[in-house]
Amino acid sequence: MIIVLKSGASDAEIGSICRRIEEMGYRAHTIRGELRTVIGAVGDDRGKERLRSLESIECVESVTPILQPFKLASREVHQGPSRVRVNGLEVGGDRLCVMAGPCSVESREQVLEVATRVKAAGASVLRGGAFKPRTSPYAFQGLEDVGLKYLAEARRETGLPIVTEVMEPDKVETVAEHADILQIGARNVQNFALLKRVAEQPKPVLLKRGMSTTVQEWLLSAEYVLSGGNPNVILCERGIRTFETSTRFTLDLNAIPVVKKLSHLPIVVDPSHGTGHWEYVESMALAAVAAGADGLIIEVHPRPEEALSDGPQSLKPDRFATLMSKVRRIAEAIGRQV
Amino acid sequence: MIIVLKSGASDAEIGSICRRIEEMGYRAHTIRGELRTVIGAVGDDRGKERLRSLESIECVESVTPILQPFKLASREVHQGPSRVRVNGLEVGGDRLCVMAGPCSVESREQVLEVATRVKAAGASVLRGGAFKPRTSPYAFQGLEDVGLKYLAEARRETGLPIVTEVMEPDKVETVAEHADILQIGARNVQNFALLKRVAEQPKPVLLKRGMSTTVQEWLLSAEYVLSGGNPNVILCERGIRTFETSTRFTLDLNAIPVVKKLSHLPIVVDPSHGTGHWEYVESMALAAVAAGADGLIIEVHPRPEEALSDGPQSLKPDRFATLMSKVRRIAEAIGRQV
Amino acid sequence: MIIVLKSGASDAEIGSICRRIEEMGYRAHTIRGELRTVIGAVGDDRGKERLRSLESIECVESVTPILQPFKLASREVHQGPSRVRVNGLEVGGDRLCVMAGPCSVESREQVLEVATRVKAAGASVLRGGAFKPRTSPYAFQGLEDVGLKYLAEARRETGLPIVTEVMEPDKVETVAEHADILQIGARNVQNFALLKRVAEQPKPVLLKRGMSTTVQEWLLSAEYVLSGGNPNVILCERGIRTFETSTRFTLDLNAIPVVKKLSHLPIVVDPSHGTGHWEYVESMALAAVAAGADGLIIEVHPRPEEALSDGPQSLKPDRFATLMSKVRRIAEAIGRQV
Amino acid sequence: MIIVLKSGASDAEIGSICRRIEEMGYRAHTIRGELRTVIGAVGDDRGKERLRSLESIECVESVTPILQPFKLASREVHQGPSRVRVNGLEVGGDRLCVMAGPCSVESREQVLEVATRVKAAGASVLRGGAFKPRTSPYAFQGLEDVGLKYLAEARRETGLPIVTEVMEPDKVETVAEHADILQIGARNVQNFALLKRVAEQPKPVLLKRGMSTTVQEWLLSAEYVLSGGNPNVILCERGIRTFETSTRFTLDLNAIPVVKKLSHLPIVVDPSHGTGHWEYVESMALAAVAAGADGLIIEVHPRPEEALSDGPQSLKPDRFATLMSKVRRIAEAIGRQV
Repeated sequence: MIIVLKSGASDAEIGSICRRIEEMGYRAHTIRGELRTVIGAVGDDRGKERLRSLESIECVESVTPILQPFKLASREVHQGPSRVRVNGLEVGGDRLCVMAGPCSVESREQVLEVATRVKAAGASVLRGGAFKPRTSPYAFQGLEDVGLKYLAEARRETGLPIVTEVMEPDKVETVAEHADILQIGARNVQNFALLKRVAEQPKPVLLKRGMSTTVQEWLLSAEYVLSGGNPNVILCERGIRTFETSTRFTLDLNAIPVVKKLSHLPIVVDPSHGTGHWEYVESMALAAVAAGADGLIIEVHPRPEEALSDGPQSLKPDRFATLMSKVRRIAEAIGRQV
Repeated sequence: MIIVLKSGASDAEIGSICRRIEEMGYRAHTIRGELRTVIGAVGDDRGKERLRSLESIECVESVTPILQPFKLASREVHQGPSRVRVNGLEVGGDRLCVMAGPCSVESREQVLEVATRVKAAGASVLRGGAFKPRTSPYAFQGLEDVGLKYLAEARRETGLPIVTEVMEPDKVETVAEHADILQIGARNVQNFALLKRVAEQPKPVLLKRGMSTTVQEWLLSAEYVLSGGNPNVILCERGIRTFETSTRFTLDLNAIPVVKKLSHLPIVVDPSHGTGHWEYVESMALAAVAAGADGLIIEVHPRPEEALSDGPQSLKPDRFATLMSKVRRIAEAIGRQV
Repeated sequence: MIIVLKSGASDAEIGSICRRIEEMGYRAHTIRGELRTVIGAVGDDRGKERLRSLESIECVESVTPILQPFKLASREVHQGPSRVRVNGLEVGGDRLCVMAGPCSVESREQVLEVATRVKAAGASVLRGGAFKPRTSPYAFQGLEDVGLKYLAEARRETGLPIVTEVMEPDKVETVAEHADILQIGARNVQNFALLKRVAEQPKPVLLKRGMSTTVQEWLLSAEYVLSGGNPNVILCERGIRTFETSTRFTLDLNAIPVVKKLSHLPIVVDPSHGTGHWEYVESMALAAVAAGADGLIIEVHPRPEEALSDGPQSLKPDRFATLMSKVRRIAEAIGRQV
Repeated sequence: MIIVLKSGASDAEIGSICRRIEEMGYRAHTIRGELRTVIGAVGDDRGKERLRSLESIECVESVTPILQPFKLASREVHQGPSRVRVNGLEVGGDRLCVMAGPCSVESREQVLEVATRVKAAGASVLRGGAFKPRTSPYAFQGLEDVGLKYLAEARRETGLPIVTEVMEPDKVETVAEHADILQIGARNVQNFALLKRVAEQPKPVLLKRGMSTTVQEWLLSAEYVLSGGNPNVILCERGIRTFETSTRFTLDLNAIPVVKKLSHLPIVVDPSHGTGHWEYVESMALAAVAAGADGLIIEVHPRPEEALSDGPQSLKPDRFATLMSKVRRIAEAIGRQV
């Protein structure tokens, strides 16, 4: 932690801050410049938050951390990339993992039809929402437990593992019974009670980035799961909030190399939510793969114009099949497979 | 809902979309312009989301809603301003409601000291966190149930009602036992399971705006509480995420007149989280009152430099007392009291 | 400047970076922590940009500046607040400066009518655009030189000094002939050729913040004018770009206390552009004054529904007069006058 | 244009608005819904801005445009993709155009060395700044005319055409003498005087997106050049301002499919400025090509740690050569060449 003092800080003030830093268990290291005195607080940084409180002392101008605040999610603890096992699959290795399916589970027929079609096109995981986080209380809230049953049936029929969202701590057990991967949605990325609960069970967690979550905060949310006992975290970039309105969100592919530099965790990309328009999904899916994503998660619906949610961003099965053939070519070009 | 067709849409396509609109229970009204055909879907708009799915039809360029999607939170249902009763107080009337206290409850002594000081300065509600949403799993997570007990004791000593945060559905009952107002934090503004649960109990809810929540989405979150049976919602602006880094968040005071135009719900402002620096709290508190806010919520700590959380944005009790005297003058200038 | 090295940096690497720092004329000060080595580069910071280039060395994790990069705009050079003289007025003292008038000069009659009305209501400067920066090439581009003449006539009639925008270096001389304050618009805040040119003439400059300019960058733009020889800079907050769409921009009143802390320059606020809707102008104008702004700039049009530009955000003269009486009361409450 | 009235608008009010719309030369088309009356203004939309002014009438809730406001930049006027000729090259066809070179021209030797190296690696255009827009007045401002001479010499030596920035109207002629493509920088994207001037000369214009410019506004800036007489516009995405700080800007690759849908103009991508860190450049360059960009513009410097500007984001020539070989593979995978 670097503490910058205001110009004119007296020796007594500098001494008093150094003492406080040392009382907190750090070594204080003072650099007197021409215009400013800077104090480095050297030591284990678990008490960072308390050091930040020095900022409320009048002669302190700013307090800046040196280290990234996450540990288990960082490359320092785990240098190579992690691989997360999902049934027979592995996310984070050379083979890309493509998850596909409808936004919401709407009926038994719908989910079975989509599951069969996306499997035929090469998807390796079936996505589908049974519990739906909806901005409006008047919008379709999902089939809930019945939806889970339909997903389980689709898995039996097709062999595809299931990823589906869990929205509250009390439902973690139920969802984990039916799902192979538990999804934490963007709106719950800092629902810490929920993160702590999914950390206590062993199934992999797909952790979506929040719409205004920095990469650092996102990795701290991952750290909640990792430090709670579950090492199987897959990150999912799904678009952030910006001023631009021609897309629903701004899919932030920069997060791929940033995450790869800072963390060992695998990262997949959701171009459906990220752009909000089916016409943009293919371009951004290919871009994500070229940028080094470990997989994709894509909304597919047989009749998007009748979808109960997110129709505008869903691909029809045929378009998804075309997309998969292009994804394969990009994957090969960078030495990976689908 | 206004459906704009791409140029060149054929009569058959137009007819087919009109039929679909009417099947969904709307009246279709076609306007043929020189460059575009536009179809208005007229009728009750509860099925909006389904209309939006028309955007996935190839000849459709865009689908734009006409009405605000919330109802109970809107001025159309309730024209005058709502007043929310908290014990003997009223939030939303001529008298401003100032809530003050520490970010976290840290000890019995701390909370009692702050409670006495802020009451003396004129605060009418005591704030303090027992359950703390922390970005890092390694940061202080709050005293939890013990913290609630200290808050209850502070209420007995001072008579000040308590506002404190609840972070998960299972804790709503416990927190509601001790608190007079349940706070939903910014990170939980779209935690729909939690919103549904606080809707089922009668205590007022202080609903903070999320850091990337539009006013419209925020009012839809309020709508979850209102439509779930609890009419006692107080909105709280606390800063949004922008590119600017000289403040921790960008406190968005524009939200005050916007909320006053769109909704009848009272709105208070949190300049402590909104700016993140104690030096900016006073200016923004005064500005909030001048802009028409119904109250303030302000962090006060006797020794901010030792605070376990949010020290940099906490006022010392003396500064808070100075602030209160200035708030009083601004309130009088606009015909309100504190 | 603080240089943080990656973990595992060797002694040879550390030595080599220290040497480079000293070659550039700084003193290198090394702090070896448990996890990271940090090097402080101590000295005059005019070569900052070159130090930042150290970030391209593989063993360097980050390079962070310590000092604000502006000098003449900072409180360190000029501790008390600056006052900018405009004819007989002073901007930055106890008396607020309210500038008002139409977005565009549309006709002789319009500008004279508005000038008379806003003067009667208490405005002390007349605003009006003769050269208009318009997003679309097909929109009304201003009356240009004729507009300047009408403004000059309005000044003769009313005695109000004129603030008007200059958009290109070649027009600085012409505009400075007629105007009392030269406005640099938000879109030109980093038009460095224009900044250099207005620095070479003595009339005060109203420097609008760009829609995505940080306070630091804005003060650096002011530094172009100050270091170029013109000390008469008035800053103008006019709203930034964020994700929120219920206002045209997000008027960032936080900038007021931030600027007051970092700089001695006066700051005025434009709630008309900042919100984009006349209904929100009054609230935000009062808030700006309460927050400590040194003045306001407000769009007034006798018939906004016929305005050639920015009608939706213009006040009618009667509403402006009401606003002024409220502004007076807020100003008194904080010990200032209008 | 769709005009939505407030609930309770009277017949007289509706009639008066319709009359006003027809006076402006539009056809008014009224749709009376249960909750709102909506009026469509049908007709040629060149007077849009004036229609927007209706928003200042009290009974009007909102005014929403239907059409995109640009014409010559749109797909409606020019359905297939445009190709821009630069000497023997074509930007916008099957062959990607890779522009590479230093941020600033620093010396004759530097620019010749880089030119030779990037040509050998397969670049087809040399970039380099002679006039530099710098946030700080104390930073290196470029070699100016001397820099142009060095660039011209590099072209003679290597045959590579030159792209370089022009920052003010008065320099357009000089820069156009030496450059093959005139670059308009992000900070000048709405410098309308400059746009009008480059429109009057025939050399291609590389129009960078501003850091807070929507795609719609960007295409309107292109429209200034097109409608001013120069059809040779190449768009360049270079990152937008968001809350995320792990990259310098957020490179918005979504802009590629959005621009391809709305416009016929070619688009290239600048991953160097977009990310601000050389370590992220390769991933984002490959992603841009996979997403359908027509080219790249990349900063290359022989000794980035000594660069006078933008060192942290510059690639060394060897890394650039590696990047080019990967770009070639991605290009082939999507059926294009370099």
